[in-house]
Amino acid sequence: MTDDNRNDRPPRFTRRGVLGTGAAMSAGAGLLALSGLPAQARAGDIPDAWDEEFDVVVIGSGFAGLSAAYEAQKAGSSVTVLEKMPSLGGNSAISGGVWSVGGTPLQEAQGIEDSPERLLEDMLAAGLDMNHVELARKVAFESLDSLMWSIEEIGVEYTETLTQLGGHAVARAYGTVDGTGAGITRPLAQRLRENDVEPRTRVALQRLLRGADGRIMGVTVRDGVPFPDDGSGEMRHIKARKAVVLATGGFGNDAVFRMLQDPRLDDDLDSTNQPGSTAEALREALSIGCTPIQLSWIQLGPWASPDERGFGLGPFFGQGIAAQHGIWVDTRTGERFVNEQADRKVRSDMILRVGNETIAIADAQGPERRGRDPETMQELLDRDVVRRFDTLAELAEAYGMSPDTLEETVGDWNAAVAAGEDPLFGRPLLRDQVVMDTAPWYAMRLTPKIHHTMGGVAINSEARALDVSTGEVIPGLYCAGEITGGVHGAVRLGGCAYGDAIVFGRIAGRNAAAEDSWS
Amino acid sequence: MTDDNRNDRPPRFTRRGVLGTGAAMSAGAGLLALSGLPAQARAGDIPDAWDEEFDVVVIGSGFAGLSAAYEAQKAGSSVTVLEKMPSLGGNSAISGGVWSVGGTPLQEAQGIEDSPERLLEDMLAAGLDMNHVELARKVAFESLDSLMWSIEEIGVEYTETLTQLGGHAVARAYGTVDGTGAGITRPLAQRLRENDVEPRTRVALQRLLRGADGRIMGVTVRDGVPFPDDGSGEMRHIKARKAVVLATGGFGNDAVFRMLQDPRLDDDLDSTNQPGSTAEALREALSIGCTPIQLSWIQLGPWASPDERGFGLGPFFGQGIAAQHGIWVDTRTGERFVNEQADRKVRSDMILRVGNETIAIADAQGPERRGRDPETMQELLDRDVVRRFDTLAELAEAYGMSPDTLEETVGDWNAAVAAGEDPLFGRPLLRDQVVMDTAPWYAMRLTPKIHHTMGGVAINSEARALDVSTGEVIPGLYCAGEITGGVHGAVRLGGCAYGDAIVFGRIAGRNAAAEDSWS
Repeated sequence: MTDDNRNDRPPRFTRRGVLGTGAAMSAGAGLLALSGLPAQARAGDIPDAWDEEFDVVVIGSGFAGLSAAYEAQKAGSSVTVLEKMPSLGGNSAISGGVWSVGGTPLQEAQGIEDSPERLLEDMLAAGLDMNHVELARKVAFESLDSLMWSIEEIGVEYTETLTQLGGHAVARAYGTVDGTGAGITRPLAQRLRENDVEPRTRVALQRLLRGADGRIMGVTVRDGVPFPDDGSGEMRHIKARKAVVLATGGFGNDAVFRMLQDPRLDDDLDSTNQPGSTAEALREALSIGCTPIQLSWIQLGPWASPDERGFGLGPFFGQGIAAQHGIWVDTRTGERFVNEQADRKVRSDMILRVGNETIAIADAQGPERRGRDPETMQELLDRDVVRRFDTLAELAEAYGMSPDTLEETVGDWNAAVAAGEDPLFGRPLLRDQVVMDTAPWYAMRLTPKIHHTMGGVAINSEARALDVSTGEVIPGLYCAGEITGGVHGAVRLGGCAYGDAIVFGRIAGRNAAAEDSWS
Repeated sequence: MTDDNRNDRPPRFTRRGVLGTGAAMSAGAGLLALSGLPAQARAGDIPDAWDEEFDVVVIGSGFAGLSAAYEAQKAGSSVTVLEKMPSLGGNSAISGGVWSVGGTPLQEAQGIEDSPERLLEDMLAAGLDMNHVELARKVAFESLDSLMWSIEEIGVEYTETLTQLGGHAVARAYGTVDGTGAGITRPLAQRLRENDVEPRTRVALQRLLRGADGRIMGVTVRDGVPFPDDGSGEMRHIKARKAVVLATGGFGNDAVFRMLQDPRLDDDLDSTNQPGSTAEALREALSIGCTPIQLSWIQLGPWASPDERGFGLGPFFGQGIAAQHGIWVDTRTGERFVNEQADRKVRSDMILRVGNETIAIADAQGPERRGRDPETMQELLDRDVVRRFDTLAELAEAYGMSPDTLEETVGDWNAAVAAGEDPLFGRPLLRDQVVMDTAPWYAMRLTPKIHHTMGGVAINSEARALDVSTGEVIPGLYCAGEITGGVHGAVRLGGCAYGDAIVFGRIAGRNAAAEDSWS
């Protein structure tokens, strides 16, 4: 692993954090006392009568929301799940189906030494030490339990293959059998239905209702609203006797909000996210006094194609095949320009610097040895996202490169493979890395797309939202998943959003169910 | 100056921004519509009776607050200025007294070609293009008018010397005669007093009072409170008939709030700021619905000493002497670890990664050739911030390094100087760079100190605060200076906080005075 963020010192596991389980941001430890005035409230919005009521109201139906609903229901609470989009699952359902966990049974069976500590170490190194360690630790150390839960209790099926994603020291990513996150969201929703919790779609959050005492009392929604929201639908007030769990995801597809935090990311840039990855719920959470955290850390995925919309199929080739078996090339020079196994930020920043004139290359062995899915490969070729060439020279000419230069680049790479060391960028070689010498050749244009928003609202390690005025928890409000910030710091590693959303979703659901009812 | 953030392409002046003068974040330009529900309000806090009333209530007495108060008073409004600390001026008063302006009379007299465009270009390059261009442009293009105003109308005195600060293409920084920002805050306060506005100290903001219609109606303060705030003082409600101007500065000295945004910056790290640079007012602004922006971009000064408090005198040696004539060394390895001329962010990040075990070194020629101020050098030695050694070996041993290794490091550096090229870090050599070979030797421990918080609340180019729920302006609320975000992007250049605070402070004051009274 050659992440240039890495260094040799031990991870700062012992660093004192500000997001402990208690009132971590209030006075103490020599820090300044806050005013101590009561928390933010907006009592004027509280309705005289409620249209519905539940113990726990979950907003969002991705990993975090469904996991929270499952645990809350299992603990005996009445639960509803509200999803603004026409279908369930959010970004989780369309994500790549890989979950990075340290110290798993598959690793043990395959002789791969790993542990939660090593996973945490990788997360902090990639995160440039901007992670909130107490949150990252929770994800690293509790993912194994949640992975086993997903298999044994939810019935998720994973393949026997472990993947080593960029920035991870070892192969540690489980992959769902169906190849996407829907392999988890579908059985989760099914388990909920079996317990008479039918998640509802086209229900959009309007207001988090915070009472005069600072407690979250419920939500106002519009029921039956299309996306994009046209202001239609029926306004309903839903009481949450115990708690609201906010699990509405990130804001990668909200050009206005992301430009506030990083003006470079204008609406010319595409996103891998589903269209509903917008910031309304985050804005609402901030407006009732949630604490904003690290909002300007926004992750781009470097392995996408400008020749299709969204996440698409491009990463199957760009990352799954070419970054492992092949190479990435700057078409202006005909040369490699980055460690193809570096983390997403390093690679995205390099592509932006090079100026988007980059391609991913593999020979015929790529699709055979990696990403063994001929149908997807054919689909990529049919869509002209990946192009096939009989010779490397033809490939070079198609992208305006000198054939000689590209031959030399591939030759240098093959020499590196033979020597067992990449002298240019220190890219770690696979155990079964082979040279590229077999026609036909494949190439795909690369572009970074907005992929994940690391920032969000601050929670403590019990998934409780923290008030921006006082630093104390906001009674009755839990948050989990991409709407929260701090787990990943500056860079989220591949497969780590699953643990983030599922571990904290389950914590939120269990804790929500354990709250006292306010009425 | 070798700012590795620079590049050759033209600045993106034409980029479409999200912070225009109108309701820039609402629907339009193909962007998603927001909910359109009424803005956040907290009507429950509005008192039945007010203790005092003014047209314009200004919170904070640094550049931004005093400039706003001056303009509002000049426009005929009744004004009060409320400062929580025992003395006026905030960080502005203790800052270095330099103001970077493009296209000034002094530049013309000295034959230095410059313009607001060039200043803006430098600001955007340093800011990694994360600046909100419409705000940065305002500062770049209106600083000259405000500089002239400070001379002609306020009576500020500047020297005839222009300084070229790091990251600026030319010498463009005016310096106050008395060498600090108090050269501006003192005459500003004096002009206010002459107009019967006596700024009040020890008055701490408790609440921004936002009415049921979303308008800011006034503030609740505690009058007669010490710092740190012990909860004492008299609670008073002050009506702002026209507007409140929030100009309370940054949060560089607030370890809890800055750790939320960047957990590396714990309270072991010192700040160059005055003790009152804390986040209470920012928290309050966020809690009533202001929009957070780029809060995790926090600037560290890499050239400071852990052996004195605050900015201190250390930068005189660490930056002025050792970064130019000498070298910086990791005491665990005895080797250099960074380009000593890189920008603040690069060097601070490297010191944090190395783990604070770094020192700045120079030989006897350092104080002779650079920073020719024997009194300051003697003061540093008297305070044991800089230590003197008869031999390099003694210096090495004092910091736990192998003398041989350090000799080799200095030898390598001297070879680089002789060769005219630094093979290790590509540090650009001075025109009069000389080898280090003359006893005695000097060393100072290095630590980054928190210097400026680039993020804050979002304003539009009329200094109006923007509501996080709707993206619309918050009626009756203006913000200016370091409490706002977006002008500087990722990195603030030296001397650019003056224009930020004074230009937007004056805009805020004029606009506040032009508001209709709500009662």
